[in-house]
Amino acid sequence: MEQKITEGIADFVAKTNYDRLPKGAISAAKGCILDCLGVALLGSREEASRITIEYGRKTGGSLEATVWTGGIRLPASQAVIINGTMSHVLDYDDYSTSWLAHPTVAIFPAALAMAEKHRRPGSECLLAYVLGVEVGGKLSAAFGNTHYLVGWHNTGTLGSIGATTASAKILNLDVKKIQLALGIGASLANGLRQNFGSMTKSLHAGCANRNGIVAAELAEAGFTADENIIEAPLGFSKVLAGGKEQPLGEIPGSLGNPFDIISPGITIKPYPSCGGTHPMIYAMLKMRKEHNISPSDVAEIECRTNSALPNILIHHHPHHALEGKFSMEFCLAAALADGKVGMEQFTDESINRPEIQNLIPRAKFTHPADFDKEILSPQEVVVRLKDGREFSRKVPFAEVPGSPQNPISWEEQSDKFRDCTQGIIPAKKIDEIVELVLHFDELREVNELTELLA
Amino acid sequence: MEQKITEGIADFVAKTNYDRLPKGAISAAKGCILDCLGVALLGSREEASRITIEYGRKTGGSLEATVWTGGIRLPASQAVIINGTMSHVLDYDDYSTSWLAHPTVAIFPAALAMAEKHRRPGSECLLAYVLGVEVGGKLSAAFGNTHYLVGWHNTGTLGSIGATTASAKILNLDVKKIQLALGIGASLANGLRQNFGSMTKSLHAGCANRNGIVAAELAEAGFTADENIIEAPLGFSKVLAGGKEQPLGEIPGSLGNPFDIISPGITIKPYPSCGGTHPMIYAMLKMRKEHNISPSDVAEIECRTNSALPNILIHHHPHHALEGKFSMEFCLAAALADGKVGMEQFTDESINRPEIQNLIPRAKFTHPADFDKEILSPQEVVVRLKDGREFSRKVPFAEVPGSPQNPISWEEQSDKFRDCTQGIIPAKKIDEIVELVLHFDELREVNELTELLA
Repeated sequence: MEQKITEGIADFVAKTNYDRLPKGAISAAKGCILDCLGVALLGSREEASRITIEYGRKTGGSLEATVWTGGIRLPASQAVIINGTMSHVLDYDDYSTSWLAHPTVAIFPAALAMAEKHRRPGSECLLAYVLGVEVGGKLSAAFGNTHYLVGWHNTGTLGSIGATTASAKILNLDVKKIQLALGIGASLANGLRQNFGSMTKSLHAGCANRNGIVAAELAEAGFTADENIIEAPLGFSKVLAGGKEQPLGEIPGSLGNPFDIISPGITIKPYPSCGGTHPMIYAMLKMRKEHNISPSDVAEIECRTNSALPNILIHHHPHHALEGKFSMEFCLAAALADGKVGMEQFTDESINRPEIQNLIPRAKFTHPADFDKEILSPQEVVVRLKDGREFSRKVPFAEVPGSPQNPISWEEQSDKFRDCTQGIIPAKKIDEIVELVLHFDELREVNELTELLA
Repeated sequence: MEQKITEGIADFVAKTNYDRLPKGAISAAKGCILDCLGVALLGSREEASRITIEYGRKTGGSLEATVWTGGIRLPASQAVIINGTMSHVLDYDDYSTSWLAHPTVAIFPAALAMAEKHRRPGSECLLAYVLGVEVGGKLSAAFGNTHYLVGWHNTGTLGSIGATTASAKILNLDVKKIQLALGIGASLANGLRQNFGSMTKSLHAGCANRNGIVAAELAEAGFTADENIIEAPLGFSKVLAGGKEQPLGEIPGSLGNPFDIISPGITIKPYPSCGGTHPMIYAMLKMRKEHNISPSDVAEIECRTNSALPNILIHHHPHHALEGKFSMEFCLAAALADGKVGMEQFTDESINRPEIQNLIPRAKFTHPADFDKEILSPQEVVVRLKDGREFSRKVPFAEVPGSPQNPISWEEQSDKFRDCTQGIIPAKKIDEIVELVLHFDELREVNELTELLA
């Protein structure tokens, strides 16, 4: 391939400074940052977080970056395994339709840890994060989800590329060294979708951050790699597509035109489950309220989606909390039984309630032709009652609250943050963090924020 | 898939004790261990090693495992990134035809570091290493090189599985936890072949060891993952084959029947370049001697191989030392010009000699039908002289000295170790290490060995 894709990306990353960022990118980034911190602090008490914090505590090392609420500092590359994992463990963090994955948890912990290590200002950290989202998003858009469909968890794989980009930007690497960093970062990329529904899914986010920092720091120190890793014959885009050539030509010109964080933008989640469940959860909650549906009246629930979805929401008979997050059947059962799908629905006890386990087998996937065009096609729920009545509602992703087309306000963002962090950190700190993130781009050093997260 | 492949593997690993190992496996393992240590110490002075040692020194951490000749101890998972990288950086380490890759550098550093951390005897470390080779080898044999052909560097990917197996064995995990460790390790697996000819290739070996330790230690601590990661619908075997189902059914029964380290066995390298260059280097050295060929007389060199090889030996116009290791054209030019292919051939200066750069364009690949059956088909070199004379020699992999069919003696192994380590560590230590490895299975604690490597 003659086109210089990796070089074009590196050139854009090296040359883009904070002044280039549109206001919309800055405000969107602040929302994503607050959201990431909120779900991370809530996630910090989960078993996966406890295990990784303890692992970090035992191995130790230079005090470069804060483990959020962990009471320890570690080498940046180690701290972010934990911060990334706890950000993603609840699957309550933001997602991107271009990435088909979770950009913020894969990138922001790396950007913040590197900025903390080098005492950089908030604006540089925000820029590094936006550029990481940008590069991963434009690659994914060009790939057209091929990687995801082969079985890769884009949060881990594209996340490694995004975190490499962000870490390289904090280090202010030149074009050539950014190319080498991408060459290393692509080789470190990892994450199998088969681990959806287990703790390892969130570890993918942790590792993406770690991979990015290691790649950027090794490139800075003179480590070598292929300079054209995105487009090369055995490079990132083709190998992770199972050997199929990917159309990459539009990538360099698309960078920043517009920024991925503005369009298609990033969705803030209203429910702590896989984003693929959200349109149907929303549809079910609406119908339940409008028609006063009672679980015991329901004969059948039809889930009209594309045929790829049952292979993403792989847990059709869930019995554990993390499995429930990847179970359309459970999410609809919970929505129907409880009238809400929040943190309290995703416990082992909640999933194993007889009324829920009784509802789960009544939900069936179907894939009418007009639903099967795209992985992000609208979803429709049809509820058939025992008395013969039938209700249905069709919802596109954009209609779910928190999507870029239906965004939530800073006030609502702050409310989610407060909900997440109440009882985890003192009320005073909660207010201070909200305020610091609102003015994140004015921070002289991000360390003002990381001190509050210690 | 109904077959329980991952469980069968875990069961074999959990139940196999040292007494089960045939004598041939033990002696082969000692040879591989000595070879790995020799090329690692020689590699410890390379730039890639210097960079990773410095990286480890800066990040630091618990003093669990020795960085070989690095003067530091680090968390086991960090030390092995460095030990694995320096073991592989010269591409002078052993390789396996079942793995199509480098098993020892991906597994032994992890087995040794974990045994050092937990002060385990040599016999347990040797067993863990043999089991790591076994699991990776049987998987690769079943996959039939699909992963490699898609573009994965099996040293990194299968290496992560092998190092997970070895680390889990040192921790004495039960069947269920070995399954979970494999689930984590498979998700961490990484390494793109595109980085052949750069430092990142050797980092793949380092990361495989690191991935294995992290996976086993997290599984021990209660981290969860998919329990059937090898055979699951989006599992390791299929996703890395680009989405193609792989035949796995014979794997459980093949484990230990015979051990992969005995058959097909592991090849000790006589030349510090990609194993794919070895039959032709051997052929060229033989012909040069027999027919007294002078480089200036040569009009053309025809390299008869399978058509996959030019995409493995990707550097057709090399100018750097590491590129030369993946250049058939350079290896044959060096064999012809110097009558040997040793460490002194692989320097930037050596590659850029006018007589070498002059010979390189005269070497051409051809792929006659009978050479194109398998990736490990015999190779033939045809040398055409300006005076019209023509010589040729066809060599199968098994004919190259150091192969399991043409093994070198312990004496010759010791000679290679001495060649590698002379001037790197004191002569007395060299003798002591050779002696300790010869009696490795009798060591009460592997720490007797690692103290000598400090």
